[in-house]
Amino acid sequence: MRKNYLLTPGPTPLPPKVSEAMSRPIIHHRTPQFQAILKEATEGLKYVFQTKNDVFILASSGTGAMEASVINLLSPGDTALSVQGGKFGERWAELCKPYGINAEIIDVEWGKAVSPLEIEKRLKANPKIKVVFTTLCETSTGVVNDIKAIGEVVNKTEAVLVVDAISGLGAIDLKTDEWFCDVVVSGSQKGLMLPPGLGFISVSPKAFKLIEASKSPRYYFDLRKAKKAIDKTDTPFTPAITLIIALNEALAMIKEDGLEKVFARHKKMADATRVAVQALGLGLFAPTAASDVVTAAKVPQGLDGEKLVKTMRDTYGVTIAGGQGEMKGKLIRIAHMGFIEEFDIIAGISCLEKVLAQMGHKFEMGKGVRAAEEEFLK
Amino acid sequence: MRKNYLLTPGPTPLPPKVSEAMSRPIIHHRTPQFQAILKEATEGLKYVFQTKNDVFILASSGTGAMEASVINLLSPGDTALSVQGGKFGERWAELCKPYGINAEIIDVEWGKAVSPLEIEKRLKANPKIKVVFTTLCETSTGVVNDIKAIGEVVNKTEAVLVVDAISGLGAIDLKTDEWFCDVVVSGSQKGLMLPPGLGFISVSPKAFKLIEASKSPRYYFDLRKAKKAIDKTDTPFTPAITLIIALNEALAMIKEDGLEKVFARHKKMADATRVAVQALGLGLFAPTAASDVVTAAKVPQGLDGEKLVKTMRDTYGVTIAGGQGEMKGKLIRIAHMGFIEEFDIIAGISCLEKVLAQMGHKFEMGKGVRAAEEEFLK
Repeated sequence: MRKNYLLTPGPTPLPPKVSEAMSRPIIHHRTPQFQAILKEATEGLKYVFQTKNDVFILASSGTGAMEASVINLLSPGDTALSVQGGKFGERWAELCKPYGINAEIIDVEWGKAVSPLEIEKRLKANPKIKVVFTTLCETSTGVVNDIKAIGEVVNKTEAVLVVDAISGLGAIDLKTDEWFCDVVVSGSQKGLMLPPGLGFISVSPKAFKLIEASKSPRYYFDLRKAKKAIDKTDTPFTPAITLIIALNEALAMIKEDGLEKVFARHKKMADATRVAVQALGLGLFAPTAASDVVTAAKVPQGLDGEKLVKTMRDTYGVTIAGGQGEMKGKLIRIAHMGFIEEFDIIAGISCLEKVLAQMGHKFEMGKGVRAAEEEFLK
Repeated sequence: MRKNYLLTPGPTPLPPKVSEAMSRPIIHHRTPQFQAILKEATEGLKYVFQTKNDVFILASSGTGAMEASVINLLSPGDTALSVQGGKFGERWAELCKPYGINAEIIDVEWGKAVSPLEIEKRLKANPKIKVVFTTLCETSTGVVNDIKAIGEVVNKTEAVLVVDAISGLGAIDLKTDEWFCDVVVSGSQKGLMLPPGLGFISVSPKAFKLIEASKSPRYYFDLRKAKKAIDKTDTPFTPAITLIIALNEALAMIKEDGLEKVFARHKKMADATRVAVQALGLGLFAPTAASDVVTAAKVPQGLDGEKLVKTMRDTYGVTIAGGQGEMKGKLIRIAHMGFIEEFDIIAGISCLEKVLAQMGHKFEMGKGVRAAEEEFLK
């Protein structure tokens, strides 16, 4: 008998309605019944994306949707500007490379947000830049970027803005249309409270012009095929039926609360987590640009961060994430995204206190939980 | 109140154990717990593929796995031989085109199997052919190809044999290693009794040499990344966790019966379906190469095939498939693949009789069901 608690930045816990939806008998996808489901899913995604643009559903992980945006917008020899301040930001340039696309890089110190002015400067310096690749919330550092300000900068140019909102969509505000986000990419296993297996991508009319012009080879991720299909409420290839049925349950929950309330809940959760870890003497990794999606905190000097995460998970059933890439062993990352509530955070902080105490970290027992409780009481 | 019966060649009905598995709380994928699941899935797939080769699991539909085999094996300017005798066979050449791969085509009349001698002739005529693309069971026509004979032909050459076994794997015999199938591609929603969303691909050492040499651009579907990951019991990108958990339930069911018994069950089902539709006066579309996966029967002269399929589905809840491509409106296709048993076939034939009678087709009521019953009694 062992109870598991999931506080990772993807996958996030599944609401019972979502789980139940996946256990229903399967239906065929080329039927009016599934067309109605696909239509509802597409409309619901437009609400969450805050867009009037087309939103396509891919049977892939979020990386598949990222690749779709790279190869559909750019041709070999084209130039893109890629913002990287963490493991997932780096993926944009990695994706450009095999396709012969030049990626100019803005290297942002891990734990910091990118400066929109820097993007403006780079766009002015090189008018050949066709696409700017950014990240809403960099999962590996917990940093949130100022997409609104970046959108204003990019919108003044011919370039197209692509936002990786895999972490963040449905958890924090992202006004796709109002903030001039031409392409927004997301995945199912984060704020949308589903298992992994679906990629999402919204495309503005400005971006569609690049898609028509792109000479990069593509088939499965060809958004021209996706556009042709969605205009007939269809998909070009067999869709991940059960996940799309479950998506409608999650979207209904988000719609019922309304985006504002959903974002406020995430902020409350994040505020509580931030004060709690600080009360335990753990510094925030991104104090100036901390997202409401996932909190990255520094492992106290002398403590083994990997052991901390492993003990919480393997001994007590509480799964949080550790550091990635250059921060391996140096960070803990506690997600407060999707179907996570107040008392899940309390449970997570309590387990963190227990293992920190066992590992010899000096702090006042209960202080983290109390700080979170006081924050929640506000 | 309406009961639905699914007799389509993908998705196929889900066993209750599979449905239940998907409704379990989700777990994180970078954990020892998921590693054990991934290992079990990979081993189980090797059993069903009848191979010692690596089998990779992709988060994509079957077409994604087909694209993976094209771009990992071939470079721009390379030549492949593509067998096409239906909608899915045609996909191989469609996939080659954007990547600048020359596809020589063997055009097989729809409803017929390809002649292995023709493949031998073409390989001799053009020693530049690096890859031969074939289909185990062509879903659009119900035809099964003689992969064993094709394997013997291709194995005598430098070329690599790729088999699209999306329809057929786990339903009819395919001895990957014994029949020299270098690459076998499959999907989750057919013989493996899962929802769509997973692609599978097995790779022989001979094929791995082409993978190392391929200059086609790729990232998400890069099998070099997949190989590196699986050697550490990992995946390069976030896997479709719930579907893989469900896969293990389906694989356990197949293993419990054993492949021989599973194939015998499919044959029995196919034999009964074939005699039943013929007893109703419907000719088999592929009398000389009918697969045990799906039966394609010709719609009687003067009858509207699309209306027949729609009425069965929308009025009576029995979903079968109609004709695709050039056979639209002219065929019905009844699947007997995956979690389908004797009395599902009886139900399907009975509904077919009902609608045929309503549409004015002349036949002796009950004759199709009786023919199936007699076949099952043998």
